[in-house]
Amino acid sequence: MTVIAVNVNGFPCMDASRVTANDFMFRGLDIAGDTSNMMGSNVTPANVMQIPGLNTLGISLARIDFAAPLGLNPPHTHPRATEILVVMEGTLSVGFITTANKLFSKTLEKGDVFVFPKGLVHFQQNVGYSNAVAISALSSQLPGTQQVAQSLFGASPPVDASLLAKAFKIDVPLVQLLQRKFLG
Amino acid sequence: MTVIAVNVNGFPCMDASRVTANDFMFRGLDIAGDTSNMMGSNVTPANVMQIPGLNTLGISLARIDFAAPLGLNPPHTHPRATEILVVMEGTLSVGFITTANKLFSKTLEKGDVFVFPKGLVHFQQNVGYSNAVAISALSSQLPGTQQVAQSLFGASPPVDASLLAKAFKIDVPLVQLLQRKFLG
Amino acid sequence: MTVIAVNVNGFPCMDASRVTANDFMFRGLDIAGDTSNMMGSNVTPANVMQIPGLNTLGISLARIDFAAPLGLNPPHTHPRATEILVVMEGTLSVGFITTANKLFSKTLEKGDVFVFPKGLVHFQQNVGYSNAVAISALSSQLPGTQQVAQSLFGASPPVDASLLAKAFKIDVPLVQLLQRKFLG
Amino acid sequence: MTVIAVNVNGFPCMDASRVTANDFMFRGLDIAGDTSNMMGSNVTPANVMQIPGLNTLGISLARIDFAAPLGLNPPHTHPRATEILVVMEGTLSVGFITTANKLFSKTLEKGDVFVFPKGLVHFQQNVGYSNAVAISALSSQLPGTQQVAQSLFGASPPVDASLLAKAFKIDVPLVQLLQRKFLG
Amino acid sequence: MTVIAVNVNGFPCMDASRVTANDFMFRGLDIAGDTSNMMGSNVTPANVMQIPGLNTLGISLARIDFAAPLGLNPPHTHPRATEILVVMEGTLSVGFITTANKLFSKTLEKGDVFVFPKGLVHFQQNVGYSNAVAISALSSQLPGTQQVAQSLFGASPPVDASLLAKAFKIDVPLVQLLQRKFLG
Amino acid sequence: MTVIAVNVNGFPCMDASRVTANDFMFRGLDIAGDTSNMMGSNVTPANVMQIPGLNTLGISLARIDFAAPLGLNPPHTHPRATEILVVMEGTLSVGFITTANKLFSKTLEKGDVFVFPKGLVHFQQNVGYSNAVAISALSSQLPGTQQVAQSLFGASPPVDASLLAKAFKIDVPLVQLLQRKFLG
Repeated sequence: MTVIAVNVNGFPCMDASRVTANDFMFRGLDIAGDTSNMMGSNVTPANVMQIPGLNTLGISLARIDFAAPLGLNPPHTHPRATEILVVMEGTLSVGFITTANKLFSKTLEKGDVFVFPKGLVHFQQNVGYSNAVAISALSSQLPGTQQVAQSLFGASPPVDASLLAKAFKIDVPLVQLLQRKFLG
Repeated sequence: MTVIAVNVNGFPCMDASRVTANDFMFRGLDIAGDTSNMMGSNVTPANVMQIPGLNTLGISLARIDFAAPLGLNPPHTHPRATEILVVMEGTLSVGFITTANKLFSKTLEKGDVFVFPKGLVHFQQNVGYSNAVAISALSSQLPGTQQVAQSLFGASPPVDASLLAKAFKIDVPLVQLLQRKFLG
Repeated sequence: MTVIAVNVNGFPCMDASRVTANDFMFRGLDIAGDTSNMMGSNVTPANVMQIPGLNTLGISLARIDFAAPLGLNPPHTHPRATEILVVMEGTLSVGFITTANKLFSKTLEKGDVFVFPKGLVHFQQNVGYSNAVAISALSSQLPGTQQVAQSLFGASPPVDASLLAKAFKIDVPLVQLLQRKFLG
Repeated sequence: MTVIAVNVNGFPCMDASRVTANDFMFRGLDIAGDTSNMMGSNVTPANVMQIPGLNTLGISLARIDFAAPLGLNPPHTHPRATEILVVMEGTLSVGFITTANKLFSKTLEKGDVFVFPKGLVHFQQNVGYSNAVAISALSSQLPGTQQVAQSLFGASPPVDASLLAKAFKIDVPLVQLLQRKFLG
Repeated sequence: MTVIAVNVNGFPCMDASRVTANDFMFRGLDIAGDTSNMMGSNVTPANVMQIPGLNTLGISLARIDFAAPLGLNPPHTHPRATEILVVMEGTLSVGFITTANKLFSKTLEKGDVFVFPKGLVHFQQNVGYSNAVAISALSSQLPGTQQVAQSLFGASPPVDASLLAKAFKIDVPLVQLLQRKFLG
Repeated sequence: MTVIAVNVNGFPCMDASRVTANDFMFRGLDIAGDTSNMMGSNVTPANVMQIPGLNTLGISLARIDFAAPLGLNPPHTHPRATEILVVMEGTLSVGFITTANKLFSKTLEKGDVFVFPKGLVHFQQNVGYSNAVAISALSSQLPGTQQVAQSLFGASPPVDASLLAKAFKIDVPLVQLLQRKFLG
């Protein structure tokens, strides 16, 4: 038997005769993600990795859980997607920063919707007294996520410490301390 | 004063200096839509008509409410969008029909996700004992919705009755009865 | 020998050295399609299934034949394409319905051109005394066609009859009659 | 009165309430173009300049008439479109040249279809004994046409004659003769 | 006189009759940018803001100057563009970080080319003994640049200090110190 | 062993775990191309054929060398790309011709930038006393180049000489002479 794995800009198409309704389905977005981590947040994706039928369709979902108090989905970007979020439970402080370094932010309650334009740094934080939950839709079948602090201070191999020191206007030992925290 | 209304493939861009966080926000997706209508369902959109900041970003949201029992979002298409839906409450029977006339359908519970590929006829119905609620994301800032039965039998001016009779393999008086129901 | 069938969002590319002029050609659009069927119409496609060289090029053709009198290309959509049609012979009544349920229709004679925007329900019917012929171009190499009545009443497996009854505001036995007609 | 002419990447959208079926229609593709010119051919376009409703829809049509004998649609490109042509009457010799300088050509009879991929130099010539007619579809609402010989030898202002002499490996007086023919 | 400023997803098109060769030209990419700033680098753009003819064409250029030693184009993203850079003079250490937190980096000499995929955090630093110069091309007529440290610590209004403290795993006074440096 | 060569609209994707920084790099754009040919010019590409990491990213670079005097990059098109060029050394006369047969041209010195819109015939010629060098960026990972004179008079198999005679308004023996020069 010859097993062939071809990567086709992400995903091969299935033989149409073998596709079923299961290829368009995902179960479990009602299950709270585990927020017992340093940031106090958790993202449960429902994209083409979980739903093969999303291939070529340019959209996906995610559930985001935020612990109380102050669970944080830290500043990050989606290189290939705009995000539109709706709060299902709790109170979130959300914002994005434009290429002109303007912060656009809002405090959102249940039922509020907010848009994070494609590629811009954005964040969400639980500023209420109970857990918060949001559903986000993203304009890509595989949006990708780049955590800003993690990618800069926790890259593998590490980014040169003196480069980061200059970029962040701090000294090298502080960069190295940050790198130990993010790589640890 | 000269008021200028230019339609620019949908929407003109705002002057960057006048854009605020409000242009990326919408409130009220937690409010149940009024389902006291013949189909027993209601769609609350959150697209570029409600959120100017979505312009050019290619995504939008909607809340769909379904009365119990059997509230129906009847067979329809979105000419410009794929839809990905997550059930927030209740039990839905959902399906879409392919261009090969195959029905792909599932019964969804809370937390289940289903994909309706771009342009295909699809539907959702409440098959549980209580109200049902879903959040849908669509891969267009203004997806458009074409209700199949309403557009065929309730168009203005009406589609020729004998044409519809032939297409649906029914007689003309029955078409005329349907037209009275949908145009009434 | 290992035969490999990879589906790549539709179609694999050929090895450039093996491509010939034949891959960009199709013969037979002058041949009338067989209209001896219930609708009295026939579509002869010339898309990427017939012309491999159309792969990635986003366009295709079709010939449509209409018997006299009243041959009908019944209400349908192309999920992935706009259609632009020119009448070669005969007289056609054509129309499409917008997402606002407006019918835009015209009677076309030889040489008349009409546009059916992407994803909208549309139809063409022979309203002259002789056979009619049209050439249509579609803005996709594989536009797909969804026959509205056939997909709803003739899907396999069938769409639930009571769901269709509610959607079309008719009773279940009538739906079942329609389903027998379309599935028969 | 304030007259406003804004060019919006081609065309502004109309106010939806003022759009009618006429905006999606064009009459006259059955009328033979006047081929009493040096090349013995004529192109009648049906694109967004003639059909406002094509705006944003990415497709258009054209009728091409060829006198007998040897009416020629000379080598040209469409910078923004693939072309797919069907012969309605007569016999055409058609071809395109790839970026590897391969000529892909065919002799086409009535009903034959041929594809000219986006941006490549191509041509069609009547090689039969009677007039020939083709219908072409193009994958752009405004495909543009660049006649190769006309653009090089008939540009305004003229391309430097010694540059053209070097490019075509001919002497300057011959270029100047050609320029007089194309500019005359 | 009525002055009309319509923003059309960036830029209105000019009236074709008024376009000249100047609209496709820009002078001065041979002029070294002023690197006497904290980072020791300078970007000179040649995009649609400088060259109106780039409108709708999806590409632009930039010149980047790096002082010696260690001039830094600090970690940043282009929300709408891939970048491909060629070193004209000097020695650069360049890198980008993937969404899997992998650092892909290289030391580049004169004539070396490197690609920074769309939306990912990347940087370039002069690691030679003399000034360095690079030319970059970007896959957008207006790629936008988001400086990571500047956008997070120098946004206006400021991002909440405790949020940044949590995201970067540092204490609030240190965040406030950083904010003073970037906002100062 | 089973060797599998799948062409996927150009290029298969690599397995993510096997990608390295080398896949995003190319060396040698500082090396002058050999201009000892009839046209006195040479193009060194840096596209997806040389840099696998460019796959799906829609951009590429090239270096163009021009001998003195009068080295010529003869009239050509890129069927899939806009080009933006910057002069690194020397003096170039450049131009493109619109679909309305207007020539837009400029004489460029070091540091000058010029845009050649997608699909239009354009050229560059050294009009200075020393060698000239340009860097061009193109809005495609594999832009393709069609040399106008070479493709018309040097195609394989040849384009019919009488067709070219008619198109260029010259006689057949002259076409045959040109064909011998370009095919020789």
